[in-house]
Amino acid sequence: MKGKFITVEGIEGTGKSTNIAVLEAMLREKDIDCLRTREPGGSVIAERIRGLLLRNEEEKPADLTELLLIFAARAEHLAKRIKPALAGGRWVLCDRFTDATFAYQGGGRGLSEKSIATLQTLVQGELRPDLTLIFDLDPEIGLDRVSRRGAPDRFEREAIAFHQRVRQHYRDIARREPERCVLIDAAGSPDEVGRRLRGAVIHRLPDLQ
Amino acid sequence: MKGKFITVEGIEGTGKSTNIAVLEAMLREKDIDCLRTREPGGSVIAERIRGLLLRNEEEKPADLTELLLIFAARAEHLAKRIKPALAGGRWVLCDRFTDATFAYQGGGRGLSEKSIATLQTLVQGELRPDLTLIFDLDPEIGLDRVSRRGAPDRFEREAIAFHQRVRQHYRDIARREPERCVLIDAAGSPDEVGRRLRGAVIHRLPDLQ
Repeated sequence: MKGKFITVEGIEGTGKSTNIAVLEAMLREKDIDCLRTREPGGSVIAERIRGLLLRNEEEKPADLTELLLIFAARAEHLAKRIKPALAGGRWVLCDRFTDATFAYQGGGRGLSEKSIATLQTLVQGELRPDLTLIFDLDPEIGLDRVSRRGAPDRFEREAIAFHQRVRQHYRDIARREPERCVLIDAAGSPDEVGRRLRGAVIHRLPDLQ
Repeated sequence: MKGKFITVEGIEGTGKSTNIAVLEAMLREKDIDCLRTREPGGSVIAERIRGLLLRNEEEKPADLTELLLIFAARAEHLAKRIKPALAGGRWVLCDRFTDATFAYQGGGRGLSEKSIATLQTLVQGELRPDLTLIFDLDPEIGLDRVSRRGAPDRFEREAIAFHQRVRQHYRDIARREPERCVLIDAAGSPDEVGRRLRGAVIHRLPDLQ
């Protein structure tokens, strides 16, 4: 039996990490073995690529370089961690995946959807997440939450208009792919958001009822 | 006036660096301003990617990861160095380019030509070298020359059969694209090879006569 592949998406400060912990606890209650991971990163070489991507350097990578590095990290993550886990029947909970690329590099930076889709096909073939949870929040609130965490990375430093485009792109994905995606309101307390998450997941994954 | 883009290719130990110096001297004699560079690498971020690619790590990148990293470095190199130089009328002498990807990742590792061609189009559009000099040598001789240089990198460490496939692929490229490519016999002394190079270049580039 193949495991399920669940991705968690959203702009900065939507509480993805907290909510992945909620999800992990739900799986544990049902004795479902899972791999919790993140992108970009998730394997030795992929984490090194993450370092190149997030660092605040004097010289910024060109947009296309950034896109190719993200898919290089993804190819590595898929080959070394995600595919073996799914093939072995484990579930995979992944903090960001290709929707983030469409939202950040497509919506945020303005790279063409076609280029991103070409790389998606090259790297993933037909593989798509079974379920994608998109946490939705006003970027003003999200970035305010994040600002308490310490030094911002290269993406967190982007202007508010960038984050608004990313949020809008995530909302568009949720609207276009309602079978795979659920949009979850990330405003309010962690408990409130956690309750919304549980409701959405139980509705979508009968295994977890 | 756009500058000319010249790439130098060949397996390990064919004397590419020495011959690029010969070429550079030929351009200097004619007062042609040129950028001498190399792949993977050639700009700050591209050189960091080169580090990821050549390092002998316990964990090797998946073949597709390697391919995407190479094109990420190439996108960066094109955007930051090669295209601005050509647009400014400088000539570019580049130690390895996309033919190396077809030869090493296609011929050597067995990745599909189609995947490589897809990335070539994404990253380069219609841009191709004006002239490609392919230095041809028996890998036994090439690797013997290289072994005197110190610790081998991740590619130099590959088995002899790998280097034979790479050489064969380079020869195929030269045969298929005779307008762009010249195959130069790299056996013999540096002086002999340098004379062959001069002959080939003067024949192809009237500017240098």
